[in-house]
Amino acid sequence: MKINQNTQYGTTIALWGPCPDRFLSQGYKKTITFEEQIEKISKVEDIKGVDLYGDWDVSPKNVEEVKRILDAYSLKTFVVTADVNSLPEFGRGSVASPNPSSRQLAIQKVTQAIDMAHILGSEIVDLWFGQDGYDYSFQSDYIWGWERIIDTVAQAAAYAAPKGIKIALEYKPREPRTHIFTATAAKMLFVAQKSGMDNVGILIDTGHGYIAGENISESAALCKLAGDKLFYVHLNDNYKLWDDDMMAGSIHPFEMVEFLYWLERTGYKGPLVLDMFPYREDPLAAATESIEFIKQVRALLAEIDAGEIEELLKNQDAAASMRFLRKKFIKGV
Amino acid sequence: MKINQNTQYGTTIALWGPCPDRFLSQGYKKTITFEEQIEKISKVEDIKGVDLYGDWDVSPKNVEEVKRILDAYSLKTFVVTADVNSLPEFGRGSVASPNPSSRQLAIQKVTQAIDMAHILGSEIVDLWFGQDGYDYSFQSDYIWGWERIIDTVAQAAAYAAPKGIKIALEYKPREPRTHIFTATAAKMLFVAQKSGMDNVGILIDTGHGYIAGENISESAALCKLAGDKLFYVHLNDNYKLWDDDMMAGSIHPFEMVEFLYWLERTGYKGPLVLDMFPYREDPLAAATESIEFIKQVRALLAEIDAGEIEELLKNQDAAASMRFLRKKFIKGV
Amino acid sequence: MKINQNTQYGTTIALWGPCPDRFLSQGYKKTITFEEQIEKISKVEDIKGVDLYGDWDVSPKNVEEVKRILDAYSLKTFVVTADVNSLPEFGRGSVASPNPSSRQLAIQKVTQAIDMAHILGSEIVDLWFGQDGYDYSFQSDYIWGWERIIDTVAQAAAYAAPKGIKIALEYKPREPRTHIFTATAAKMLFVAQKSGMDNVGILIDTGHGYIAGENISESAALCKLAGDKLFYVHLNDNYKLWDDDMMAGSIHPFEMVEFLYWLERTGYKGPLVLDMFPYREDPLAAATESIEFIKQVRALLAEIDAGEIEELLKNQDAAASMRFLRKKFIKGV
Amino acid sequence: MKINQNTQYGTTIALWGPCPDRFLSQGYKKTITFEEQIEKISKVEDIKGVDLYGDWDVSPKNVEEVKRILDAYSLKTFVVTADVNSLPEFGRGSVASPNPSSRQLAIQKVTQAIDMAHILGSEIVDLWFGQDGYDYSFQSDYIWGWERIIDTVAQAAAYAAPKGIKIALEYKPREPRTHIFTATAAKMLFVAQKSGMDNVGILIDTGHGYIAGENISESAALCKLAGDKLFYVHLNDNYKLWDDDMMAGSIHPFEMVEFLYWLERTGYKGPLVLDMFPYREDPLAAATESIEFIKQVRALLAEIDAGEIEELLKNQDAAASMRFLRKKFIKGV
Repeated sequence: MKINQNTQYGTTIALWGPCPDRFLSQGYKKTITFEEQIEKISKVEDIKGVDLYGDWDVSPKNVEEVKRILDAYSLKTFVVTADVNSLPEFGRGSVASPNPSSRQLAIQKVTQAIDMAHILGSEIVDLWFGQDGYDYSFQSDYIWGWERIIDTVAQAAAYAAPKGIKIALEYKPREPRTHIFTATAAKMLFVAQKSGMDNVGILIDTGHGYIAGENISESAALCKLAGDKLFYVHLNDNYKLWDDDMMAGSIHPFEMVEFLYWLERTGYKGPLVLDMFPYREDPLAAATESIEFIKQVRALLAEIDAGEIEELLKNQDAAASMRFLRKKFIKGV
Repeated sequence: MKINQNTQYGTTIALWGPCPDRFLSQGYKKTITFEEQIEKISKVEDIKGVDLYGDWDVSPKNVEEVKRILDAYSLKTFVVTADVNSLPEFGRGSVASPNPSSRQLAIQKVTQAIDMAHILGSEIVDLWFGQDGYDYSFQSDYIWGWERIIDTVAQAAAYAAPKGIKIALEYKPREPRTHIFTATAAKMLFVAQKSGMDNVGILIDTGHGYIAGENISESAALCKLAGDKLFYVHLNDNYKLWDDDMMAGSIHPFEMVEFLYWLERTGYKGPLVLDMFPYREDPLAAATESIEFIKQVRALLAEIDAGEIEELLKNQDAAASMRFLRKKFIKGV
Repeated sequence: MKINQNTQYGTTIALWGPCPDRFLSQGYKKTITFEEQIEKISKVEDIKGVDLYGDWDVSPKNVEEVKRILDAYSLKTFVVTADVNSLPEFGRGSVASPNPSSRQLAIQKVTQAIDMAHILGSEIVDLWFGQDGYDYSFQSDYIWGWERIIDTVAQAAAYAAPKGIKIALEYKPREPRTHIFTATAAKMLFVAQKSGMDNVGILIDTGHGYIAGENISESAALCKLAGDKLFYVHLNDNYKLWDDDMMAGSIHPFEMVEFLYWLERTGYKGPLVLDMFPYREDPLAAATESIEFIKQVRALLAEIDAGEIEELLKNQDAAASMRFLRKKFIKGV
Repeated sequence: MKINQNTQYGTTIALWGPCPDRFLSQGYKKTITFEEQIEKISKVEDIKGVDLYGDWDVSPKNVEEVKRILDAYSLKTFVVTADVNSLPEFGRGSVASPNPSSRQLAIQKVTQAIDMAHILGSEIVDLWFGQDGYDYSFQSDYIWGWERIIDTVAQAAAYAAPKGIKIALEYKPREPRTHIFTATAAKMLFVAQKSGMDNVGILIDTGHGYIAGENISESAALCKLAGDKLFYVHLNDNYKLWDDDMMAGSIHPFEMVEFLYWLERTGYKGPLVLDMFPYREDPLAAATESIEFIKQVRALLAEIDAGEIEELLKNQDAAASMRFLRKKFIKGV
């Protein structure tokens, strides 16, 4: 089948950081500077761009310096993610915090992210409302919370549109809250539709999709059906219980194969971006191995006749599907 | 707070049946006739109506007889559920089956359900597409499948509208398929919106919501936000892994309390219907205990000042929420 | 590495049956006779034996006839499973039922299974206490229940030992009960140890291990550590939420590869037995595809140097592990 | 029934700390000194003792100072937990690390914890091997790993025994590793038995039990059956997917009621210790509310006739169990 030959690979910066958790809050690895991280990233030949996280990686104060460093290493900024998650002010929510000053700060972070994306030449801002949710029964006015999110997205999209920037909504069902409002692809399509803006779409993080109980290929198809709403993808894997942010394809290789097929099938043209958190692994090894897996699968897909796959899907014959996967992707003997 | 004093209680018929599973396909209890089931149901004072399942409980052939029996016991038909699930013809899907004759039969079952609802005086037809989904990677063309479902719902709604009948879409993430297309409340809101018909809304089965990873109160709020789209509710409980169809409130009592609050808060006026499958329990005991729990909780809610709850939700203070639940719902000493 | 070249493949009989569930209690496929099932099984060249389920497949009344049929098709009886699960008498438990007559019947079913195994030339009886558990809080006296199970296993083992028959304890965390006492490998090792009998060991059903939250390879290693306690294996796959009984290796291929490695590593010499429930699939196609996958993986394992794997496991380097899986099992380009 | 009137309440120190996660590695709240934490703890009248975590709370260097502070606030040391988890050296495992120097350091941490417990007058050392596990297939030699753990526990128990100190093994299935070896109560009973030492038992953390798929009451019963092996308990709650460390009883109140019953039934005499991580809550409010819930439930249990509960459990009648819970624990109207 026809596989996009111009696909670019990317990475988040956090993949290359110390990877803290609550037991090792200083991180499993040494903290290195942004430039050191970028220098390491540049060693992965296939990686052409990065996702920058607000505050962690880029802020209004250092945005020009960041641009200089990225240029020096010939890396693009694929996405800027608004930081509405990593400050103590957002501990009880950002745009849906009970605290008006936190809500105000959150809006400011969103518009700053759009401004920074504009400066950095990125076409997409990632909005992930990880702190906006709840943990206990009778802890939240769900209608009020949802309205805050929809309003914010509408505002952000209106602010971004004249700059030619699109808003990619990143969903995730839990962590850091036990319940995040914007939990699934379909919920985010609801937000996108309610925002009333065309420049709002969806970011599928494969691991977030898994823990949301989704078949990620079906989610990509749903975005297609909703009007080409898949704006961006993050690749990683997990055990479907928690956002383990593991190497792409490592736990559910067949589901990753199918997802890579559906990205082509639905005409996704954006980059394939690793969003992993290799607590105990060398980031260079983990990133390289993930990209090798993806490239190998895509090369195998390229060898298969598109009509053969369409026929397979039409027949809905499970044994044939498994034979297909074994014959086309498992080594022969 | 103000609690609707006219709320009616209902039950599915299957609750009173033999309750088979794959190990005891003849069921854990003796099969009794429809009239015997109705006679048992009529012994629960609070129950005023029933949900009838196509083929299992009602068909074009026996619909008049069913009406006679229900009338004899002064029970209403709250809902007719189209049988697109329990025939071998639907084993590989109903409206999204690869088999054209199965698709045709499914559509026929849907229109028959609408006709029967009309005859029986029911205002709602429940559409649950439990067999429409997939189990393996590369087994389904998701776009084609989703289109079949959306088309069917649009057709059904158009057929039902002139009869004054509404379509309640019942979602469930799995069982009998490992992946059912129409898995979550938000996905069903997407179907409802795509159908383009006003008489399409959502049925929240609390247990289905749990296994979909939803907070069912938030789902009710989402339906409200989408334009008063909560048309019907089924009550039961489970361990959030499988549709165990247990007694309402038995496993997650606080989440049931909150859901009963949100039903009032969002103005739900329909019946509260038990959809349980008490494999090993006496149905009369299981239904009675469930209704007693619900009634007791609603009576306790009625004693609480609505403003007190709104203030609680506004503050998002978890310890206060837990204190509230303990003080208002747990027995004092 | 050295792979046992004498490994035999087997199947349960239920794999070839109508596959009912609670929605289609008559099954997704036509019911055929035992001999017709055996005739179909005999078409899979690799299958050399079967697991017989008490009551469903074999009973004291038909055991000689069953033997005749199996002989006619040159199939061995690998295992007889005592039926303490599929009769209405066991609906509220078998050996831990509150009903003394059910407990008595259960013991009888266990000794009958041992007698039948003896007649059929099988060396192993499978004990699976699927109905012995509980569903609600305050529904069970756990100590009493556990004592019933331990006593039964001790009795069964004592009865089986003089006949040269071993008891394989099959664990599963849920279905048909929401909580089955004998839920995990380690719990069953506890039962085995408490029984005080050497002829008691463990049956790992890969799917049961998955839904118990286990890494099945680690479970095999644990059985080894407990003193060569892995007596039997059932192969299938699922989504780790429910016992979907899908084709072996279809969902978690890498975990199946690792399990097949650990079977060799720990010296398992028994058959590899498919225990699947292909509701919607042709059983011949599903069984054949599963065996092809297993054989292909084992052939690939045979090509790898044992020392290479041991070195890999010693280093605990995740990226190396993934590179190993990709290089050795994924098709090159 | 008879409820132990001398039960003491306790808390971990981390409950009162900044509560970091990977998004806010500096914590959701301000870091305060150990003495400030102790001062806050002393405000909860019911709390009589604390669990001290190695390195975080206590080390050979500050143990005397810690003792002085605790004495000043009249707080006992209930438990010292060996720190084999929170140092970068343990990032790839402690006693089962591939790195010999990490293994050596881990053993040292264990013996130091025993020494500190001795100094502090604590009778129990908690061993939790949270970093000893694996994340990917083919990443670990399970037999080698298990042997390291069993050896360590045997060594620790032998070192602790002459000092009159017991070893409480704390199990947890995941976090920080995706797979921790010592995942369940039954696995830990296996370790305890293999250690060959009488002073080795189990610590049930209710939340760890939940995410291990256990019914925690059944786990307490299993410890009883294994020979009074329940040495310690940690109380908290979660959504059974992750160790959310929420307020005790907040999500699964009925299961907590049942657990408190089984603690009495099996003769547990130790303290009830809160091990929560209230990221966004005031620790004083969260701890107080949790203890109030537990005390209220225990007071209600005290009013119930023990024979009534035993009769209930004997009958295994689910509807009766639910009626019991409603009548005895839910407020009347």
